[in-house]
Amino acid sequence: MSLLVVGSVAFDAVETPFGSREKMLGGSATHFSLSAGFFTDVRVVGVVGGDFGREELAVFEKHRIDTSDVERVEGGKTFFWRGRYDFDLNTAHTLDTQLNVFADFRPKLSDASRRSRLVFLGNIQPDLQREVREQVSGAELVALDTMNYWITTVPEAVKGAIRGVNVVIINDAEARQLAGEPNLIKAARKILSWGPMALVVKRGEYGAAMFTKDTYFAIPAYPLEAVFDPTGAGDTFAGGFMGYLASQPAIDEAVMRRAMIFGSVMASFNVEEFGTERVSRLTHAEINNRFQGFKKMTHFEAIPFERAAREAGKS
Amino acid sequence: MSLLVVGSVAFDAVETPFGSREKMLGGSATHFSLSAGFFTDVRVVGVVGGDFGREELAVFEKHRIDTSDVERVEGGKTFFWRGRYDFDLNTAHTLDTQLNVFADFRPKLSDASRRSRLVFLGNIQPDLQREVREQVSGAELVALDTMNYWITTVPEAVKGAIRGVNVVIINDAEARQLAGEPNLIKAARKILSWGPMALVVKRGEYGAAMFTKDTYFAIPAYPLEAVFDPTGAGDTFAGGFMGYLASQPAIDEAVMRRAMIFGSVMASFNVEEFGTERVSRLTHAEINNRFQGFKKMTHFEAIPFERAAREAGKS
Repeated sequence: MSLLVVGSVAFDAVETPFGSREKMLGGSATHFSLSAGFFTDVRVVGVVGGDFGREELAVFEKHRIDTSDVERVEGGKTFFWRGRYDFDLNTAHTLDTQLNVFADFRPKLSDASRRSRLVFLGNIQPDLQREVREQVSGAELVALDTMNYWITTVPEAVKGAIRGVNVVIINDAEARQLAGEPNLIKAARKILSWGPMALVVKRGEYGAAMFTKDTYFAIPAYPLEAVFDPTGAGDTFAGGFMGYLASQPAIDEAVMRRAMIFGSVMASFNVEEFGTERVSRLTHAEINNRFQGFKKMTHFEAIPFERAAREAGKS
Repeated sequence: MSLLVVGSVAFDAVETPFGSREKMLGGSATHFSLSAGFFTDVRVVGVVGGDFGREELAVFEKHRIDTSDVERVEGGKTFFWRGRYDFDLNTAHTLDTQLNVFADFRPKLSDASRRSRLVFLGNIQPDLQREVREQVSGAELVALDTMNYWITTVPEAVKGAIRGVNVVIINDAEARQLAGEPNLIKAARKILSWGPMALVVKRGEYGAAMFTKDTYFAIPAYPLEAVFDPTGAGDTFAGGFMGYLASQPAIDEAVMRRAMIFGSVMASFNVEEFGTERVSRLTHAEINNRFQGFKKMTHFEAIPFERAAREAGKS
């Protein structure tokens, strides 16, 4: 059931209309692994500086996430991001980015990591994603995330990375930008033509969709009255999605659909509080309860319209 | 099974990146009734000018829609709207609005119309909506649509009209504006507190949602590779929704959920061609086929995550 994630481990400073945090645990690999850890065994490959202390590592340990492949650069500082959200919580305004030790990050995988069944390539430079992918050639399923920065600056490298993976997990605007196509259905078809078997599109408050060559699956977001801090929601979604896949003996369309729901469930908890605060103290009962909530809010009976009554009444 | 609609009957001139039409049949009551006519008997209350000819009336007659309450002002001209859509087909840019005979529209209901079981108050001045509503006091279910123009200029009149109806069918931005609340879930709760038993929110390419006091239902839009002309999509949705409700002997949550699907199905056809062109030649087989498509693209099995395996592996 092993799942590997390669990505950033960071400190975030976040300001929203509802409050702020000056230094909290963040980064794609952090949000992903805390979420996935509810479903399966997770290993993290990343890098931190000497300022990354026992307190931060304890969060991973508490969730039994394997951090032995997290490199520690004693003389360096951990990746730092500062951002602000306005009342439109859909857009993060970056105020400061200090890559620090992350600038020279070259993922080093232990033998155990190389043998992972599933792999998630978090949002890092796409050539690095490809290098990691080549080291996990025996993996059953490899997924990646990317972002507008890489799509704008090195689009061919992004396509190269996508060619080597099974699943692409990105947001709505990124999918359209990546394909150069405003219509999402056409964009999805184009991205799938590069090789992946599935494209998962995150749509924030509008939910998520999954495209394969022959199928389409779409779900709403869990209805929340208060979104507090969306930082890490995308990686938390990916963690729930990949974690659930890893927990299952075989991966097919039905399993992937349930994984979409678990991803959405995890993301819905993530945004309720700052950073990792809400997900850190989640329970399996809470997760399954919200999973059933998704069933309730999407279910309808497939009874077609009976034409006969209408026609009889007319003639 | 009778269904009444009060609204505009118009001529539209529309320009999109994919083509244009100089004068085509349009208006809220037109789109609504053509859509609802696939499910039930529909009567239209509206007004047209002397320029509204046999050819236009023939479209209604072909679909066996009762137009005996459509008033004809021989010396006047029919309501005319000219609009343009750019590649972002979500926003209509109004280039010209000539209310003509519609400016003095005072809906006159025949006795038969007053006895309608279901009533849809299309987007007209909210005080007129209330007047009509008072004339159909025996109706089982009354729904209304409105628009940002009325919400901005006469918000109290809009609220007054809403207080008297059972269902409000508006779009996402209108719901937020109406409630003065950016969070849709909170906005919905506020609107429902004014009296309606259900709020239906249309979200364009992101689908639709239905709120009641105790339930939430959300569906994606039907995935379309080409949206040609969105004019009338909202009224076509409302027509499918109300038409299906009218076709059923009793209205409950399960029926309303299927009505949401039929509304979405009808709207998805509407946008595939200009104006009423696609809906005019639809078949029941096409409608039911797309209805089943909605089931396929939203279905998942409600199997919760089995915590046992995860916990056993950990200890």
